[in-house]
Amino acid sequence: MTLTGKMLIGQQAITGSREAIRAIDPATDKPLEPAYPGGSCEHVEQACALAWAAFDSYRETPLTARAEFLEAIADEIEALGDELVERAMAETGLPRPRIQAERGRTCQQLRTFARTVRAGEWLDVRVDTALPERQPLPRPDLRQRQVPLGPVAVFGASNFPLAFSVAGGDTASALAAGCPVIVKAHGAHPGTSELVGRAVGRAVEKCGLPEGVFSLLFGSGREAGIALVSDPRIKAVGFTGSRSGGIALCKAALARPEPIPVYAEMSSINPVLLFPAALQARGEALAQGFVASLTQGAGQFCTNPGLVIARQGPALDRFITAAADLVQRSPAQTMLTPGIFNAYEAGVSSLAEHAHAQVAAAGLRGEDPNQCQAHLFVTRARDFLTDHTLQAEMFGAASLIVQCADDDEIRQVIEHLEGQLTATLHLDDADLENARALVPTLERKAGRLLVNGWPTGVEVCDAMVHGGPFPATSDPRTTSVGTAAILRFLRPVCYQDFPDTLLPAALKHSNPLQLRRLLDGQREA
Amino acid sequence: MTLTGKMLIGQQAITGSREAIRAIDPATDKPLEPAYPGGSCEHVEQACALAWAAFDSYRETPLTARAEFLEAIADEIEALGDELVERAMAETGLPRPRIQAERGRTCQQLRTFARTVRAGEWLDVRVDTALPERQPLPRPDLRQRQVPLGPVAVFGASNFPLAFSVAGGDTASALAAGCPVIVKAHGAHPGTSELVGRAVGRAVEKCGLPEGVFSLLFGSGREAGIALVSDPRIKAVGFTGSRSGGIALCKAALARPEPIPVYAEMSSINPVLLFPAALQARGEALAQGFVASLTQGAGQFCTNPGLVIARQGPALDRFITAAADLVQRSPAQTMLTPGIFNAYEAGVSSLAEHAHAQVAAAGLRGEDPNQCQAHLFVTRARDFLTDHTLQAEMFGAASLIVQCADDDEIRQVIEHLEGQLTATLHLDDADLENARALVPTLERKAGRLLVNGWPTGVEVCDAMVHGGPFPATSDPRTTSVGTAAILRFLRPVCYQDFPDTLLPAALKHSNPLQLRRLLDGQREA
Repeated sequence: MTLTGKMLIGQQAITGSREAIRAIDPATDKPLEPAYPGGSCEHVEQACALAWAAFDSYRETPLTARAEFLEAIADEIEALGDELVERAMAETGLPRPRIQAERGRTCQQLRTFARTVRAGEWLDVRVDTALPERQPLPRPDLRQRQVPLGPVAVFGASNFPLAFSVAGGDTASALAAGCPVIVKAHGAHPGTSELVGRAVGRAVEKCGLPEGVFSLLFGSGREAGIALVSDPRIKAVGFTGSRSGGIALCKAALARPEPIPVYAEMSSINPVLLFPAALQARGEALAQGFVASLTQGAGQFCTNPGLVIARQGPALDRFITAAADLVQRSPAQTMLTPGIFNAYEAGVSSLAEHAHAQVAAAGLRGEDPNQCQAHLFVTRARDFLTDHTLQAEMFGAASLIVQCADDDEIRQVIEHLEGQLTATLHLDDADLENARALVPTLERKAGRLLVNGWPTGVEVCDAMVHGGPFPATSDPRTTSVGTAAILRFLRPVCYQDFPDTLLPAALKHSNPLQLRRLLDGQREA
Repeated sequence: MTLTGKMLIGQQAITGSREAIRAIDPATDKPLEPAYPGGSCEHVEQACALAWAAFDSYRETPLTARAEFLEAIADEIEALGDELVERAMAETGLPRPRIQAERGRTCQQLRTFARTVRAGEWLDVRVDTALPERQPLPRPDLRQRQVPLGPVAVFGASNFPLAFSVAGGDTASALAAGCPVIVKAHGAHPGTSELVGRAVGRAVEKCGLPEGVFSLLFGSGREAGIALVSDPRIKAVGFTGSRSGGIALCKAALARPEPIPVYAEMSSINPVLLFPAALQARGEALAQGFVASLTQGAGQFCTNPGLVIARQGPALDRFITAAADLVQRSPAQTMLTPGIFNAYEAGVSSLAEHAHAQVAAAGLRGEDPNQCQAHLFVTRARDFLTDHTLQAEMFGAASLIVQCADDDEIRQVIEHLEGQLTATLHLDDADLENARALVPTLERKAGRLLVNGWPTGVEVCDAMVHGGPFPATSDPRTTSVGTAAILRFLRPVCYQDFPDTLLPAALKHSNPLQLRRLLDGQREA
């Protein structure tokens, strides 16, 4: 298959009319063919018109048909074979096993949402049957289901070219909910995006769905993206990326005549708490686990452990020494883009020059372009508490250890944290009461709490929460990973005294979908 | 019990230090004692500090204890006896049966949320057990529950001095979710608010809860309200009122360093579609039902039928004649406040002078102050489609009939509508296919669709949706009436590999709360 540099507006391959983006191999700084001319406002308009035309039909597809569509996308992505893997490697600098694993995760994610769609629990069917004899007033027959919000704009992430991009979690959950999707591809991996976008397009065609169910746009500046979020036919936005990018989309969404929800996953430093007994008993093992999590994938994970909090003393000193030694021996790794590399270098330099932070270790330097040199910093709690810049995310393999004088300082540091995707506790039995006192605060700060693990590695399952209070995300009420992500794209509608023939299948009296309804206050078995 | 004019900050009765508000009996335009001096930013600060201090404890109250608290509030409201009824009548101009019914609804609402809290489905417990042998990577143990967002600011509504005010739906659902509540009382009924607020305070005390679980503030301008929404300890806002008021709160909430959700129920004209066969067969009965719904409570319902859509012709002419006759004979009714009366008069005058709207009927004029004179207007679809001002809500007993030339104009009028709380269809068997074609559009426009009923009358039950797309509300993903309202004040948290002793009761391995969990992808029986 040859890359064309074209967008996909419904089933039409269309060449953009704006400035072209071109992927760069970050391992060589060399541009990759082809160029991807950007979409204009007219292209956005065409994609939105098609999505809108498709919405009423797509949202009422039978659950089985919608599930088969998601599975067909997974099949088509697998059918791309090695071409997809090699293009993604070239565009991201990520190694083959990582890209292969991410492809597996992406397809598993689509199939997991297919299972979720079939099970139908997300319809949250509630039925209160009529009570015509009730005094003083009769009760009508009332039935509630969830319906999709409408066409969704998805902005692909740089750091997961498959799992959080064109057919990633946002797209899969929006399609599962019954929303057409228009993806604005991330400029760092347009070739990967084209390949996956065409795979989705083939699935649309094979499943006989209206073409507007899916479109893929390119664009170098903010023109197409802001036009997309501002279009009245777009009813929600999914985004994974920087804090400034997420906030810009939120502002555009709220400036509309009809504001819409934006699900932006933005910024998190993922605090790790090392409790005294654990630190005493296994400081070196903790250092190994920490540095492995920190440096994995050049630290380019939303859940990278960017902050370590512990009580000062000999045990923490030993941990720092062990971690510093491992960081110093960490090989350099290619970062995703020159822009991400430059931002990382700037962040690390800024912290290295900070009056109240010390460099504990720096990893090996690389010879090639865009090489992430791992960094470990140390500061004191009293400084962390007074200087908000020490909470700034450094996207890459850098972390800051906060030394606390006592338990009260630990508590203060945690209370001082912004919202986070994750918070990790390393503890032994003797630490349990200590930890118990901090869990309520951590629950207020983060979407996922881990004990004796590392935050990188986000399972796609029912119980996952990849979300958290601002600025981790723009909406703490949701998750962008796991099956609960479908709930982001739904709203409830109530049908009062509808004749059975007008009711949707989910609400008909005979319950043909065999859903476990909340019927007159009782959950059906 | 003597009214004191004091706020309730936790268990302390405190006199405000800002300009006082004073209720006005709208039937006489006479001020009522006592004066209610307004709260300052310092009072807001005190209430927020108490709410924050109460949060971690209150949110982990056992479900039974929290349910008993809600029931205790209902008991305390009932114990207020006739003093509450008489004060509410004096402050609102609403008749005794209405206030008594609303008190019953308010207490039933609290008890319904108590049942919902006990059942615990809202915790949405999801468990994915560990798969230590899984290849290539083991799966950790992952458990998700919903936790409350944090302290909630509630702004009482003018038109439901009990059911949507101090201990109304927003307060009940936030308390049910585990959120402390700070109410900013509506200036139109401070005495009613004080009585109910003190009832809530007594329930807090009797249940042994931390005092910060509930506070009640007064305030004449926007100072206290904006300070409340801007306080970093407030994590969500509930509001029922005008579009401009709701939008102002949304802006304040989004201007915060940490934006928070605002659930504002604002503006709806609640279209009613009269289909040909129904109109032909029972136009007069429809006119009776319509005018009864329109004039009930002086039309001061969020779900008042402010728009009628039908095909022009003799059947519609007969309906208009019958409805006009009934409107002309409608007695004037006291409106809630002079401000609401003046806004209604202005809206009605403006429409009466509109070049493309005709007055079909006006009701009886009243002698007393603030008397709502019912109004019925008629326009043509082509004018409605080109002039957006014809969609403006007239809060009160006024409605506009849109005459459509054909089915296509009906479809256009519906597509042209802003978001609505409700949409009503009156149809006979012969209209079913006609209606079927319009239901998808109506689903996109409204939160509740009714067949052969009237939109006033909002049942408090599991299946109710009192919500809808903007500007009906600021967030179409929710409802402010019914048990699903609790979901507005929750966010998910995931616990990974937690030792059982650190897990909350809802997630413990032994499932002590006997919840029907989603366990490894299967719903427990």
